[in-house]
Amino acid sequence: MAEADRGLPEQLSKRIVQLILDEKLEQGDRLPNEAELVRCLGAGRSSVREAMKLLASRNIVQIKQGSGTYVSSNPGVVDDPLGFTFIEDKKRLVHDLLEVRFMIEPHIARMAAEHATDKQIDEIMYWCDECERLILAGEDYAAADAKMHTAIAKSSDNLVVPRLLPILNESVPLFITATKKILVEETLRTHRNVANAIAEHDPVAAGDAMYLHLVYNRSVIR
Amino acid sequence: MAEADRGLPEQLSKRIVQLILDEKLEQGDRLPNEAELVRCLGAGRSSVREAMKLLASRNIVQIKQGSGTYVSSNPGVVDDPLGFTFIEDKKRLVHDLLEVRFMIEPHIARMAAEHATDKQIDEIMYWCDECERLILAGEDYAAADAKMHTAIAKSSDNLVVPRLLPILNESVPLFITATKKILVEETLRTHRNVANAIAEHDPVAAGDAMYLHLVYNRSVIR
Repeated sequence: MAEADRGLPEQLSKRIVQLILDEKLEQGDRLPNEAELVRCLGAGRSSVREAMKLLASRNIVQIKQGSGTYVSSNPGVVDDPLGFTFIEDKKRLVHDLLEVRFMIEPHIARMAAEHATDKQIDEIMYWCDECERLILAGEDYAAADAKMHTAIAKSSDNLVVPRLLPILNESVPLFITATKKILVEETLRTHRNVANAIAEHDPVAAGDAMYLHLVYNRSVIR
Repeated sequence: MAEADRGLPEQLSKRIVQLILDEKLEQGDRLPNEAELVRCLGAGRSSVREAMKLLASRNIVQIKQGSGTYVSSNPGVVDDPLGFTFIEDKKRLVHDLLEVRFMIEPHIARMAAEHATDKQIDEIMYWCDECERLILAGEDYAAADAKMHTAIAKSSDNLVVPRLLPILNESVPLFITATKKILVEETLRTHRNVANAIAEHDPVAAGDAMYLHLVYNRSVIR
């Protein structure tokens, strides 16, 4: 938390967050317009506008010019929330991110194998196929790879995991750069094994396959 | 990421982040003043001021009235970065946070036992003693409890873990509320066992003690 007093717009932004919670506004819902907020918060128009800019900068609301202000998808989850931009030593960052992925991703694969719905399995399979297609075509598969890991996290039936994993997936493009070409065959195989084990609701096989996937990554990165 | 174009101040804020990185400014270092930034970014004074407010709202800089603008401590790590404020079901949040703590905290205790310096062990012991004192006096020990877990995370010799743990420690006060009085004796004992194992550089004992600590919490929460 910044220690400085951030003033009136900061206080107003907190009251607007409370209003979103009280009114049970969901992602995509429109907030009251500026005139209504000025009235109900008892604050000046320019302070309300400043407060909205603060909330937009934190991805809590999205301001659409000429249309209104809406609750963001994944409100409050900002880009780079752990400040990795400010870690100078990227090589060490990759190593340390991988260490954390080892702690959680085999667990997540197990949870997904227990809880994934048919629709979630379809999504995991889709991204597994898409990764495979891109890899075999020699194209950039970083985004598809991250989407597959995210689809698995979303199937964990845990509220925290899907918010945590994108941060760790920060590392996926770095890993691919580090392991390019060398791990093509292993990536294809372990991805497929993870996806199949989840589809078969086999937690042990899913956890083992994910562990192996990370082991291959670590063996090249070290 | 908010999809809307956030305009000029947003672009300027990114260039200022790059400037902080390029100049290798560290926490507490002063940024160039407004006139210098206006000159070197080729932008208007009010846009630069807006950009600085955005950076302050993300805890990248701290604006001290009449003194200047400084790089924050833990730059880029915002309050509630995963948006837990927006999770309605707090009971489920506690459960799911505990599930994630199970994945990582025994590992972290093991890492701390391997890597903690003498100074870090002193800090862990200090917070362990402080927790004990507060518990026995019947006072609120939530902050001291979170500080002990944070001191352990800082001893893990991993760049990511100390940024991750405070988020999960969000849950400590909730756990204490949920487990109040019932777990006093178990908390005292497992905390002490974790701290002692780390001080003795015994990773297996540290991991086991932390696991047991979480098991006690889970048995009450369920």
